[in-house]
Amino acid sequence: MSQRTLAPVCASPIQQHLEQLHRELSGVTDGAVATYIPELAKANPDWFGICVVTTNGGLYEAGDSHQTFTIQSISKPFVYGLALEDRGRAEVFSKIGVEPTGDAFNSISLDPTTGRPRNPMINAGAIASTGLIEGKTPATRLQRILDLFELYAGAELKVDAAVYRSESETGHRNRAIGHMLRNFGILTEDPTPTLELYFQQCSILASCRDLAVMAATLANRGVNPITGKQAIRGEYVESVLGVMGTCGMYDYSGEWLHDVGLPAKSGVAGGIIAVLPGQLGIGVFSPRLDAHGNSIRGIRVCDALSRHWDLHLFNRPGIGRSAIRLRSSGAEFNSSRVRTVVESQALREHGDGIQLYQLQGNLTFASAEMVLRELSERAGAIRFLILDFKRVLTVSESASRLFAALLGEYASAERHIVFAHVEGVPALRRYLKAKLGERFEELFEVFDDKDTALEACENRLLARLFPEAPADLSVARCDYELLRDLNPDEIAAVGALLHRQTHGAGEVIIRAGDEAHELFLLARGKVSVIVTLPSGRTKRLATFSAGMAFGEMAILDRAPRSAMIVADTEVACDVLTLHDFAALGTTHPAIKIQMLENLARGLSLKLRKANRELTVLE
Amino acid sequence: MSQRTLAPVCASPIQQHLEQLHRELSGVTDGAVATYIPELAKANPDWFGICVVTTNGGLYEAGDSHQTFTIQSISKPFVYGLALEDRGRAEVFSKIGVEPTGDAFNSISLDPTTGRPRNPMINAGAIASTGLIEGKTPATRLQRILDLFELYAGAELKVDAAVYRSESETGHRNRAIGHMLRNFGILTEDPTPTLELYFQQCSILASCRDLAVMAATLANRGVNPITGKQAIRGEYVESVLGVMGTCGMYDYSGEWLHDVGLPAKSGVAGGIIAVLPGQLGIGVFSPRLDAHGNSIRGIRVCDALSRHWDLHLFNRPGIGRSAIRLRSSGAEFNSSRVRTVVESQALREHGDGIQLYQLQGNLTFASAEMVLRELSERAGAIRFLILDFKRVLTVSESASRLFAALLGEYASAERHIVFAHVEGVPALRRYLKAKLGERFEELFEVFDDKDTALEACENRLLARLFPEAPADLSVARCDYELLRDLNPDEIAAVGALLHRQTHGAGEVIIRAGDEAHELFLLARGKVSVIVTLPSGRTKRLATFSAGMAFGEMAILDRAPRSAMIVADTEVACDVLTLHDFAALGTTHPAIKIQMLENLARGLSLKLRKANRELTVLE
Repeated sequence: MSQRTLAPVCASPIQQHLEQLHRELSGVTDGAVATYIPELAKANPDWFGICVVTTNGGLYEAGDSHQTFTIQSISKPFVYGLALEDRGRAEVFSKIGVEPTGDAFNSISLDPTTGRPRNPMINAGAIASTGLIEGKTPATRLQRILDLFELYAGAELKVDAAVYRSESETGHRNRAIGHMLRNFGILTEDPTPTLELYFQQCSILASCRDLAVMAATLANRGVNPITGKQAIRGEYVESVLGVMGTCGMYDYSGEWLHDVGLPAKSGVAGGIIAVLPGQLGIGVFSPRLDAHGNSIRGIRVCDALSRHWDLHLFNRPGIGRSAIRLRSSGAEFNSSRVRTVVESQALREHGDGIQLYQLQGNLTFASAEMVLRELSERAGAIRFLILDFKRVLTVSESASRLFAALLGEYASAERHIVFAHVEGVPALRRYLKAKLGERFEELFEVFDDKDTALEACENRLLARLFPEAPADLSVARCDYELLRDLNPDEIAAVGALLHRQTHGAGEVIIRAGDEAHELFLLARGKVSVIVTLPSGRTKRLATFSAGMAFGEMAILDRAPRSAMIVADTEVACDVLTLHDFAALGTTHPAIKIQMLENLARGLSLKLRKANRELTVLE
Repeated sequence: MSQRTLAPVCASPIQQHLEQLHRELSGVTDGAVATYIPELAKANPDWFGICVVTTNGGLYEAGDSHQTFTIQSISKPFVYGLALEDRGRAEVFSKIGVEPTGDAFNSISLDPTTGRPRNPMINAGAIASTGLIEGKTPATRLQRILDLFELYAGAELKVDAAVYRSESETGHRNRAIGHMLRNFGILTEDPTPTLELYFQQCSILASCRDLAVMAATLANRGVNPITGKQAIRGEYVESVLGVMGTCGMYDYSGEWLHDVGLPAKSGVAGGIIAVLPGQLGIGVFSPRLDAHGNSIRGIRVCDALSRHWDLHLFNRPGIGRSAIRLRSSGAEFNSSRVRTVVESQALREHGDGIQLYQLQGNLTFASAEMVLRELSERAGAIRFLILDFKRVLTVSESASRLFAALLGEYASAERHIVFAHVEGVPALRRYLKAKLGERFEELFEVFDDKDTALEACENRLLARLFPEAPADLSVARCDYELLRDLNPDEIAAVGALLHRQTHGAGEVIIRAGDEAHELFLLARGKVSVIVTLPSGRTKRLATFSAGMAFGEMAILDRAPRSAMIVADTEVACDVLTLHDFAALGTTHPAIKIQMLENLARGLSLKLRKANRELTVLE
């Protein structure tokens, strides 16, 4: 078979679909370019670009996806979000409502008594939002808006001076709105600078690719999925998407949410953004508009993508048990601490008291609820619960709250929860720390990984089962597993071949890659087998304690050492050279046979354990 | 340690939270019971029930959650869904719009020219929906609505005759609407029977527990999560939730979607339902209403739960790589077919051409996109791709489409995709069958599990690497792995102890639980080691081919057979009794030593493989 690496062959079906959709809809020439701002009328009506960006950073584009145009009303939700960040919900809400009007895009729609605009997606509400942006001078405020949009888009953006002039010169209706807002005290100063800023924000140039990244940033709780930068605090994203959801498409918004099912915003230059929270953002550009002021091809694209890709917000499958990646017990899955035959037997019999849950994905209320319910139902039989967060992406505050409650309940019933791999979910630790207060140190027991967590739980279980057993006993030669069933004379004969080595804690006894000349019988202390993974991380494969042999596999394979062996404690071991072990076959064949049988039996037990665990993991 | 099973100790924090919320909000006595239907005024204003049901079937309730009341306007979305099922989208949409009105609950809101009600959540639109329900007689139509509601609720429901009479006697405004609708031809017959049916549907008695299950059924794509029965086709759920999302809370709908972020519907008897698609449904009952006609405590409950449990529809975390449970290659993870040393070495060197992806959860467009993009980027290096769907809950049509496209692309580049565990995702198979047509049989290669899929891919890879090697050769005694490094005389000495057995394909050679008296050297054919899992399913642990030994582990352990061994093909093997093997130690110690070393080396290789795979799976 040829060993050359072949070039990528898989043309993306998503890319192909976008291109096909672009071809099909290029034939749609209904509608007309907006003319009420004279500069917009200069747009080429055939321009047509589509771009889709996922929260995973996937980006697909077709047609004139790099053609810039003015963002117009698509600026409204982003500036509304900035107003929320600058002033907080209460102040913004006192000035701007969030009810859809059912009226056309250019309706004024102020509350007749308070003058409060009905929502931030109509011009009146958008101008009110712009009036709330912080900044000492008009230039500072414009720069803040530009900086914000650049964070959302991950690209440099600028204002189209000609369009801005045109908007400013002809925006009499908006000037009227500005003065109405000033009249009602919604704007508290001369409306002109706010109006100019509003005209400028509408005249920012962006491509539909930029818009798709901006939309994907909203889909990704405010974090730009390409640059990784936060454009808006997550807590305000829901408000921005909320007004897009009910008011983003003018008096077509209801039908839009019903049919397309994506929070969206259109602009009269022909742009549309649409957002599927958690998943993706869409940007489309085509200047021909319908009577509602929405891009005709833009609507067709969003509608087709929503149907073709099942994007409807309200069409979500049930989450099932998807939060649990793996569930196992200490009876069927054990730590890499190698146990004696007696201990192994005890763990197989009583290990159900240890339960291991490996969780995965985004732990939201409903996915965590399922885990909690199961743990509640099973709590009677669980003494030690290990929760492994290695595969968890995020833990919502509500899920953290559920875990905090579980922790308290378990503690009061003298059950123990230990956590593993919480480094990727700092929000959980923060929440628990704040919630548990001074009990945090006592209750929040954390291990690096599930293996060390399992070992700790096994140790405690074994300590209950064998309360007399001293930990980490030294053993005599007759207790070496490898010398089992030998008589005292035979043990003495082997003993004459052994030489004693001692190692301090942390000392390396065997290095990976060394040639294998010796096998080791552990007289006192503990040693661990450590491999370095392709990722560069190290992983413990096994820990041996007194009485066990190590280093025997490389001798059997006649291969170099495959892993490092490190002394975990002060260690004493008896070393048997390969040469002496081989010679035993001639001088004391019966001893050699017994030792080989012991060695093979030990391997057989380890293999059974490994096979059992493979079955569990699959 | 005590072995008694302890009683459940974990009081659900969710249950506790609901009870606490119930206590807190019981003090809220603002608002007034609806009086415009005289019978409603008889409600106890202090009634207060809360219930939450998850799509996993979790149910939590507090207060008067079993107190029934009339469902009123909460009937509207469900009857609208039935109208969609009965008449299809186009006909329904021609009669009823989907735009929010921004007007109060009792506004008439007909389109001034067509008479089309603005949406199905206002009374006019709801009466129009009721007029679209199929059924020969009024009694049949009422029964269909009752049957529908019972499917949603998973409980028996009935009409409150007194409330119905009261509504019918005093419903002048609704009668006026009915005649207006008749006037415009939205209702095509005498409006009276439709109005009576509408009054009846509003007078159906339900508890907030019933409502929560109904809401959870909408959250679960139309499948009742308690009974598992389908109440509405999934494709219409998005429409029902769509109108709830924009119009469900009267002229408070925009603020509701902005703040609470859940599609919802309220009724004037004091009920509210709210839905988080994919996750859960909420039902609340408290009769005191605000000026919009919404239950005051009901709103407070939904608002508190949304905040406390992070339920806002637009507050969803990014999905990350959550669709991939496990990614591995044929170089690090192999089938249970035990390979020769040469074959194992070849797989470790060239196995990267086999890639295994175990997928998980709900494969929607965005989660499948991430998988496809990765497979596209890596396609050059992949010769055999295994897609394992064992942990997949659902595959959306769009995700199926992506897999179909990938299949075509891979095929045209002479790459192979094999599927495992597709039995749980019938939609994928159906889609591929329809899409691929006559190429389906050729392209859609399916295995029961990833193990058999891996084996098939390994076999093809090995056949390319060793084109000369005949499959399943018989071996001579000198080729037995267990007799390696013995000289011809020694082989002859062992040979004198062997007796030949043959087995037909499918025949059981060893039964689990049998005492172990023999070890087997496989001369011809293949055998598999099969265990029965606690679930009752069987699982292949290993397959051996000619030259290999089997049945040796039980002999080493001196334990009964732990698994069944079955002949996969016609099999010939040479059997060595435990007695003869033991005797070799005395008669031919050098032979015994060599055989034990060979045996231990084989175990060591298997253990290394198992440990490597454990590392991959974790």
